[in-house]
Amino acid sequence: MSFDRLISRIIELKNPTVVGLDPKLEYVPAFIQERYMEKDGGTLKAAAKAIFDFNKAIIDEIHDLVPAIKPQAAYYEMYGHHGIKTLEKTIQYAQLNGMFVITDAKRNDIGATMQAYASAHLGSVNVQENEIAPFGADALTVNGYLGTDGIDPLLEECRKNDKGIYVLVKTSNPSSGELQDMKLADGRTIYECMGDMCEKWGADTVGKYGYSAVGAVVGATYPEMLTLLRKRLPHTMFLVPGYGAQGGGAEGLRGGFDENGLGAIVNSSRAVMCAYKKEGCDEREFAQAARREVIRMRDDICQYINLK
Amino acid sequence: MSFDRLISRIIELKNPTVVGLDPKLEYVPAFIQERYMEKDGGTLKAAAKAIFDFNKAIIDEIHDLVPAIKPQAAYYEMYGHHGIKTLEKTIQYAQLNGMFVITDAKRNDIGATMQAYASAHLGSVNVQENEIAPFGADALTVNGYLGTDGIDPLLEECRKNDKGIYVLVKTSNPSSGELQDMKLADGRTIYECMGDMCEKWGADTVGKYGYSAVGAVVGATYPEMLTLLRKRLPHTMFLVPGYGAQGGGAEGLRGGFDENGLGAIVNSSRAVMCAYKKEGCDEREFAQAARREVIRMRDDICQYINLK
Repeated sequence: MSFDRLISRIIELKNPTVVGLDPKLEYVPAFIQERYMEKDGGTLKAAAKAIFDFNKAIIDEIHDLVPAIKPQAAYYEMYGHHGIKTLEKTIQYAQLNGMFVITDAKRNDIGATMQAYASAHLGSVNVQENEIAPFGADALTVNGYLGTDGIDPLLEECRKNDKGIYVLVKTSNPSSGELQDMKLADGRTIYECMGDMCEKWGADTVGKYGYSAVGAVVGATYPEMLTLLRKRLPHTMFLVPGYGAQGGGAEGLRGGFDENGLGAIVNSSRAVMCAYKKEGCDEREFAQAARREVIRMRDDICQYINLK
Repeated sequence: MSFDRLISRIIELKNPTVVGLDPKLEYVPAFIQERYMEKDGGTLKAAAKAIFDFNKAIIDEIHDLVPAIKPQAAYYEMYGHHGIKTLEKTIQYAQLNGMFVITDAKRNDIGATMQAYASAHLGSVNVQENEIAPFGADALTVNGYLGTDGIDPLLEECRKNDKGIYVLVKTSNPSSGELQDMKLADGRTIYECMGDMCEKWGADTVGKYGYSAVGAVVGATYPEMLTLLRKRLPHTMFLVPGYGAQGGGAEGLRGGFDENGLGAIVNSSRAVMCAYKKEGCDEREFAQAARREVIRMRDDICQYINLK
């Protein structure tokens, strides 16, 4: 009922990073695409099958080094229900390989409907006599615009099934400030207000490392805000997108971590999935190139933090 | 590239309502569930198939009366990829029957990822030589917390494929005010600020009825804000949840409409899907009971507005 499972694995592997599996079809090497396109032609089903093979090979190569993956739901929804099946299989495969899975879906709704999302992604669903976990992720990203009754059903799953959530606080994109940086009458920015809500929502789920089951998404592209929020939200673990491809550097991440090198997990997606393109190696080596990139990333980030 | 298609149909049917298809399995009559559970047992697949039959029968009974359906993605995700297949089939079936489909998914992400959601839900995806529309809805609900670059990819689909979006402004749930009602330093509330952004985003997509492709979700449970926002956002069409089961009455909706009875579409989900339970009629009459409820709802709302 906190992020203890994830943090323990971060300490064990000495690696506070997560690999985003956001597999656009164009990232998947031709030799894998051909496996299915030759048989089924250019269909959503063939694309989804190729993407699963791609994900699987990357997981095989990185699971002993990286504590977690973060599949981005949008890139699976792109392939309709076939893509969603690949999402389910990717989650299962990563967990079988000891990885913690954060589904990046930024879900949000009113209470009754949020219960359905919570059951789908973190909990289980009853069909007649059977209780089935449709996705069974370990954590889910969510949007807190609707307030507490859109968060409560998630907290219930966190407590019951030892899961976690990351609430959008300060996102990594260029226009994130349009709303999030607005000043409130009470002097706070909207993102500070949202951060304060995370502390409140997580208050009774703080685990042995001092962090609750309610984390926050804070972009690497805004290092000063990362530092400010680390001080302001002492029990809120950060999921940090925007490192690498989006422009956030490793030194700027330092402020997101506490004095023990904990309190944050940094995501990289494209740089890992497309490492073989950047390296210019044979496309059949895409998974080994991904492995080389996660090692490079781990070492790049760890030089600035105090993770023992 | 506006909501003209939907508004034309509202005028044609003299009915500014939309039926929310949020089919919890417990809403589906036993005789339909048994069709599939006997064969497949209590599986997600059997549940998803039963839900499609339920949706199909309701669409058959209401498509000549109601301009649109609004399937809520959460209730399909609950059944994993089988549920998503039912969502796809429901959208297709409703459109084949002349209905406008608003997928209620409240999606949100940074630009590159929002492009994937936009392609998935409103646009199309290329796989080799084929261009395929995975969901093909007519409109999508979205959350604007990430600002303009999370909205731009949707606007592109709106322009290219004559689609629309509804951005969450003031939601219908009890705790919606926690963030949305906060006062900004400039005197506006957050929901007013979000509403103003909708006007801006939609500015160059205004159609023949005066409304743009960017609508707003404004809950029926806050009638005074509905009235205030109608005046403030003259080009923004409202999607209004919260009528009926959530407690919003028909008279309070009046303020959401303009002087021609346009500018809003009111949703009802549970009251339509479960009309047979409330009526206490035979469960085999569930679709006819749904038809009776949509007529009652239409007449209830139309007595307060000036739709010619």
